[in-house]
Amino acid sequence: MAAPKLSAISTRAPKSADKEKTKQKTARLISELDELQNLLIAENKNALLVIVQGMDASGKDGVIRNVFGSLNPLGVSVKSYKAPTAEELSHDFLWRIHKHVPAKGMIQIFNRSHYEDVLITRVHGWCDDETAVKRMKAINDFEELITQHNHTTVLKFYLHISQKEQQERLQERTHDPRKMWKYNEKDFDESRLWKKYMNYYQQCFTACNKIPWHIIPSDQNWYKEHLIATVVHNALSKLNMQYPGLKK
Amino acid sequence: MAAPKLSAISTRAPKSADKEKTKQKTARLISELDELQNLLIAENKNALLVIVQGMDASGKDGVIRNVFGSLNPLGVSVKSYKAPTAEELSHDFLWRIHKHVPAKGMIQIFNRSHYEDVLITRVHGWCDDETAVKRMKAINDFEELITQHNHTTVLKFYLHISQKEQQERLQERTHDPRKMWKYNEKDFDESRLWKKYMNYYQQCFTACNKIPWHIIPSDQNWYKEHLIATVVHNALSKLNMQYPGLKK
Repeated sequence: MAAPKLSAISTRAPKSADKEKTKQKTARLISELDELQNLLIAENKNALLVIVQGMDASGKDGVIRNVFGSLNPLGVSVKSYKAPTAEELSHDFLWRIHKHVPAKGMIQIFNRSHYEDVLITRVHGWCDDETAVKRMKAINDFEELITQHNHTTVLKFYLHISQKEQQERLQERTHDPRKMWKYNEKDFDESRLWKKYMNYYQQCFTACNKIPWHIIPSDQNWYKEHLIATVVHNALSKLNMQYPGLKK
Repeated sequence: MAAPKLSAISTRAPKSADKEKTKQKTARLISELDELQNLLIAENKNALLVIVQGMDASGKDGVIRNVFGSLNPLGVSVKSYKAPTAEELSHDFLWRIHKHVPAKGMIQIFNRSHYEDVLITRVHGWCDDETAVKRMKAINDFEELITQHNHTTVLKFYLHISQKEQQERLQERTHDPRKMWKYNEKDFDESRLWKKYMNYYQQCFTACNKIPWHIIPSDQNWYKEHLIATVVHNALSKLNMQYPGLKK
């Protein structure tokens, strides 16, 4: 599949999309995820890894809450990757990732991921181009490993927002009392590096597209949630899962 | 608080309880948990550990799904404890437990727990009485540690079902295709040890009641879920949480 080209993709829903109808469809898809997850657990043959990437305030937490929030907590787990610890830095960059890949029957969500090791690290000059190329090769190998050797479906989402939308959301955090806890002054500094980020994201999409990226127009949450629910629903449906019979 | 006496507690709802009204109340409580969890995450001061114990088919999975199933997956995690691995057995019995206690802001659910180390182990003679007494002392100390040193609220639930109800549920697994995957022949063998289990459970409730046990009549799921939702709601409300202001 051809790698997606970020600059050619809108951050907004097409004008023809009907918000209310789309929301109804999303609600139906999400309600059906419940039974698909039950099958995933019961059959215990496949695993699902969902990688959520995006700039600050692109709505990663909202996806986790609104698309995956009604699943059975027994079978879904979220790992949020922050700056690596000293112990993590003393290992290869996939060491802390490998620990948290899903077991059979499980849905694992990565809130940020190993892709940060070729994104924020490059933007700030902590990872040079040569290392980045090697890392992206290692990422491809790693994703192939868990796909082939533990029946893991890997879904990679980039939440595509405009810088203007991001600025509005970051501003909102400075005056909405329910959102102030998310405010971080440094997010504004990172935002100034937007073009660099887009460049390095594009390189990820090009170099690591063996398992394809889904670029999700995310300025509007209802549209973002619809697209992601659709992809997840399709991926689980394609597994053709069955309830196992009685163990002998 | 006086330790609960299992033999004096019914496994059923009182006759006066109104099923439909109770279910409505439960739905309201659960919908309010969402905002309480949001506060827990935002404030990042307290943690919640929910321990779910009970015989096979007592409805532990159902509690997790139905009471905690609409929480934000970002802030809730389930750890199911099974038979310990060789590595776990080569450590003290709380080693594998301590790893999974909740961080501040998090809700952690234990599906079975360290209590199995003074239950199934005693029933089968893998743990003698003297060791059990020492373990129960260690459990008290451990629960005190996380309560006092990481602001953890510990809620301990025993799902109280009758052996008759259990038998019916185990039988159901042999002919309901959606439940066959849960069937395990050995559950019937364990059921024959019912009296022994009740005796050792009672010893836990007596010796480990510094943080009190909640004995939940669980023959009817609607009543079980109502009681647990109530306890969780009360516990989170009592924390008097506030959204933090802007970080300086």
